[in-house]
Amino acid sequence: MKALRFESGSLKLAETPVPRLPGEALVRVALAGICSTDLHITRGYAAFSGTLGHEFVGVVEESPDTSQIGRRVVGEINAGCGNCDLCRSGDSRHCLRRTVLGIHGRDGAFAEYLNLPAVNLLPVPDTVSDRQAVFTEPLAAAFEILAQVEIGPSDRIAVIGDGKLGQLIARVLAGASSHLILIGKHDPKLQLARAAAVEAVHVASLEAGTAAFDVVVEASGSPSGLTLAQQLVRPRGTIVLKSTFHGQSEIDASAIVVNEVTLVGSRCGRFAPALEALASGKVDVEPLIEREYALEDGIAAMIEAASPGMLKVLLVP
Amino acid sequence: MKALRFESGSLKLAETPVPRLPGEALVRVALAGICSTDLHITRGYAAFSGTLGHEFVGVVEESPDTSQIGRRVVGEINAGCGNCDLCRSGDSRHCLRRTVLGIHGRDGAFAEYLNLPAVNLLPVPDTVSDRQAVFTEPLAAAFEILAQVEIGPSDRIAVIGDGKLGQLIARVLAGASSHLILIGKHDPKLQLARAAAVEAVHVASLEAGTAAFDVVVEASGSPSGLTLAQQLVRPRGTIVLKSTFHGQSEIDASAIVVNEVTLVGSRCGRFAPALEALASGKVDVEPLIEREYALEDGIAAMIEAASPGMLKVLLVP
Repeated sequence: MKALRFESGSLKLAETPVPRLPGEALVRVALAGICSTDLHITRGYAAFSGTLGHEFVGVVEESPDTSQIGRRVVGEINAGCGNCDLCRSGDSRHCLRRTVLGIHGRDGAFAEYLNLPAVNLLPVPDTVSDRQAVFTEPLAAAFEILAQVEIGPSDRIAVIGDGKLGQLIARVLAGASSHLILIGKHDPKLQLARAAAVEAVHVASLEAGTAAFDVVVEASGSPSGLTLAQQLVRPRGTIVLKSTFHGQSEIDASAIVVNEVTLVGSRCGRFAPALEALASGKVDVEPLIEREYALEDGIAAMIEAASPGMLKVLLVP
Repeated sequence: MKALRFESGSLKLAETPVPRLPGEALVRVALAGICSTDLHITRGYAAFSGTLGHEFVGVVEESPDTSQIGRRVVGEINAGCGNCDLCRSGDSRHCLRRTVLGIHGRDGAFAEYLNLPAVNLLPVPDTVSDRQAVFTEPLAAAFEILAQVEIGPSDRIAVIGDGKLGQLIARVLAGASSHLILIGKHDPKLQLARAAAVEAVHVASLEAGTAAFDVVVEASGSPSGLTLAQQLVRPRGTIVLKSTFHGQSEIDASAIVVNEVTLVGSRCGRFAPALEALASGKVDVEPLIEREYALEDGIAAMIEAASPGMLKVLLVP
């Protein structure tokens, strides 16, 4: 089968055997999405080697759970060891021995087929299209914020970053608070947020020194976003770190102590609330799709996805 | 009166008028404590100019609240504007226009007299000696952690730093969890913690890669303490930042995101729980006193307080 792989520092379209990890399901990928993490991996993040990709929707062809065969599914990307305290408590997302689809120790979704444990797969409701379902993983990551931080309707929220992740987070959190702004640098993307009834402002138009936000979400993936978050958060407020970026970041630890700010690292979320939001139409994701590429044009797709201001680029195996 | 002042980059013992801020109480200082923050200020932290010192016990000589006159008191160090939302909600500790005793915009306690608003003063129970009461402010800062982070009896806690603040924090949190260790570099201070029934280990004897702690408190005041905290905290665990240090600190933001770690900045606490702990004998602070100096030997006292491994140095006006 065809697979888009990152190996020995180079990205290539390869011909590989259909994967058949013992005891796991085999999923034929229908559609996959390129995430900033995939781009970071090609710059060395996570030291990953193998088939890229972790956002997908597909159809189960083989599974130890025969009821899954033929079903359209999405899949939780963390596969735990199954035996540790975290896995037993239902949180394999943080298992220390986990593998992660297309990120750590496990080939990913930019391929015709992938493997995942049957327990990781969730059926997609018929009312959710492939082009919507492929957003389940990043949308779940946006919902994870609500699982970690209590947000009330009068809380003042700022989301920094008008890219793919920031757009999803703003749409999700706007359902929890009516005092939310998205802060970005790209007018067309600010416009896109406004079309989804999200208040959006250009970073250049922010007033200096307005430490007025109860919760600030950093989703720009840039160190300057973290600096801005520290300027915007109120004393005793919360900064949610949502982007993974390579290397060390600088924080003003004294300001965090003096103002008793809380920083919350936030990564993957559970899929169920995301699928529900897609099925109910609560979050409209299709305007975030920039373009579809055939998997065999995957390298060109990755290059386009890396260009500034790009939204979601999809791959069709 | 005599006052130990930091002005134009130099520390000096000065003769100054008795302070008489309109509408505030006048306290004759009986005993004051030197805190690491005082030492940091002499290196440029907080850009403070004036009389140093914020840990004290004294006797009220004048006050708009006449019931306070003649009472032995300690004092909350943050004086809010009284009019903003934070002050009105009872949290003048984070008022954006606040002054802070000996730290920001207000002369401090290394003097024969100080001013504070009457509302900041709390009477000291007769059973609490001056040498105990002078620890109220740093002990309240230790109790603040319990006001911010939920700690249960089975939670695994690590306190990094065997100095004054780490010693107090370990004693306070050991009352909340029976799985606490203090991590330090100075054998005599580890021994001091053990004498207070706190398990204490040398940093060199830690096993590498034990990301096993639910809560890690950074109280070493050193950037390497923050690095160690990130190594010790479990996935989804909490790091409490307790030391203020000058300049930027490096964090591994990706690891914080991937492991969904929470960082909590923690500063001043309310005085009541600290006074109760002193009165009940729950926390024994006197073994932490290294030496008393007369205020007129304040410069020598500051130099001694700055030497490595030093515990609490007191000043007697």
